[in-house]
Amino acid sequence: MHKDSLNRDARIAVVGATGAVGTITMQLLRERGYENVRAFASARSAGTRIGDVVVEEATPDALAAGGIDVALFSVGTTASRELVPHAVRGGAVAVDKSSAYRLEPGIPLVVPEVNGERAAEHDGIVANPNCCTIPLTCVLKPLYDEAGIERVRISTYQSVSGAGAQRMEKLRAENADDHDLVMDWEFDGFEFDEEEKLRLETRKIMELPELPVSATCVRVPVLVSHAESVWIETADELTPERARAILESAPSVRVVEPYPTPKQAAGADEVLVGRIRRDVTSERGLALYIVCDNLRKGAALNAIQIAELLLDRAAIAA
Amino acid sequence: MHKDSLNRDARIAVVGATGAVGTITMQLLRERGYENVRAFASARSAGTRIGDVVVEEATPDALAAGGIDVALFSVGTTASRELVPHAVRGGAVAVDKSSAYRLEPGIPLVVPEVNGERAAEHDGIVANPNCCTIPLTCVLKPLYDEAGIERVRISTYQSVSGAGAQRMEKLRAENADDHDLVMDWEFDGFEFDEEEKLRLETRKIMELPELPVSATCVRVPVLVSHAESVWIETADELTPERARAILESAPSVRVVEPYPTPKQAAGADEVLVGRIRRDVTSERGLALYIVCDNLRKGAALNAIQIAELLLDRAAIAA
Repeated sequence: MHKDSLNRDARIAVVGATGAVGTITMQLLRERGYENVRAFASARSAGTRIGDVVVEEATPDALAAGGIDVALFSVGTTASRELVPHAVRGGAVAVDKSSAYRLEPGIPLVVPEVNGERAAEHDGIVANPNCCTIPLTCVLKPLYDEAGIERVRISTYQSVSGAGAQRMEKLRAENADDHDLVMDWEFDGFEFDEEEKLRLETRKIMELPELPVSATCVRVPVLVSHAESVWIETADELTPERARAILESAPSVRVVEPYPTPKQAAGADEVLVGRIRRDVTSERGLALYIVCDNLRKGAALNAIQIAELLLDRAAIAA
Repeated sequence: MHKDSLNRDARIAVVGATGAVGTITMQLLRERGYENVRAFASARSAGTRIGDVVVEEATPDALAAGGIDVALFSVGTTASRELVPHAVRGGAVAVDKSSAYRLEPGIPLVVPEVNGERAAEHDGIVANPNCCTIPLTCVLKPLYDEAGIERVRISTYQSVSGAGAQRMEKLRAENADDHDLVMDWEFDGFEFDEEEKLRLETRKIMELPELPVSATCVRVPVLVSHAESVWIETADELTPERARAILESAPSVRVVEPYPTPKQAAGADEVLVGRIRRDVTSERGLALYIVCDNLRKGAALNAIQIAELLLDRAAIAA
């Protein structure tokens, strides 16, 4: 919707350009017609090419040297803490995918369809939410606007690409016969942490600091797309039929009945939602099932949409 | 616990002996020292051998011919409806794994640890519950006895072996690279049906005909073990610590903290449970995570335990 006013000559840097999310970010930027894209990665990847872009080493000095309007970071939390301030010092606005800044007061945590107006409040950094939080809030927001929300419970089915390119390679490399039998869903410290992220980020984005959210996060041996089995208790009565109608007209949401699959979601830009039905255990309960490409809308695409909000605003201000 | 009084010469038939559950049934019977085991399957498998047992064709006449004390059926619902009555006519007690008889009034649906006493009420048929219902009720029952249960919500992560040996072969045969990306969780009619089974069977076994149960059943590309992410609201206050202590002394349940995995459950006889914690969205809510070998305690082992209840009773009566 903002595309016409966008400056395709905006100087965009992708930091972590060779990772699982970075690769998709580069691809989406190309598809959207951006001409001035630079790619940064670790020393190991510096000098390689992504299309016709030569990868530069992501050093503090390189990022602080200026000439970048928006820097899209998809590196680990530690690397983000180290590098993001240098990009900001150099005059860029950083859109950061790590969890480094998401819960920091004063730093906007943005899903454009949900709280896009918060992006303008940045002081150099906008945080990009967790890959499960983004599709969840895209679905919760329009339902909340209609009927309020009392509590939310979520079980996730997260693909291995959410754990980075190396984990994808590991799954690809494993013998099918072996890994299927022994695959631990790596339901480890990381995933416990993931549950807290899902709760706290949802509260911040929805601006409902007390919203009760309970999550069980599980990783499954699927390459791409995260799914979420969700129970929602609304404040006011909301029939499944009405919920479906609301979601059908919600931005970036596509209703797929009877159910969406990871295969359908992979490569798609929307958040797919189906199985919208009454939660028979609860008076004002709904149950539904969300699937989203965790690398696109769950990560890279959301960051680019944030960048476009910022560029659009800059264009209007100019 | 009944083992000492059991007659190892009891005449046991396994019908569907070459299928995913039948294969494990044959193996468990051998391990438990049963000497008089006959194997039945379709015409296609008749004449093949399982160890030193020659597979017989499962015809109505063969099953009605007598000489069978207990017949363990693990065939499809249609085949069970056709064949079970003949085995009963021949004098056997049938323990049936299909959904053909589970909800029929007057036919006991038994998880030995939960409602074993109901097995004695049979009139020739005892039904063996769904592979998700068995572990769920093993966990719910001791918690219910302590604190009552108001409502239960479950998201399942079901392995493909629950859909039979052919589906296992299909997954084994698929190229890892391919199937991981495109694997639909086959969240189809079957699984919707599965949700209703989980609700209705849980109510029957727990003898709580009104218990509110909401389930979302999903199949994942794992060969063996079903997992369940569960939220429980109790009637009385029950701390996670007390729930853990109760489950630690519950029969056939093993507490594995921080979390059990499909790999740990595969080949194990117990129901593994972990992540026992407060459901922060609810005043008397608990969240926990169950994993169980769907072919063993979820199917074959539970059937054999039912058979042993019946044989034990027969031994006492003799």
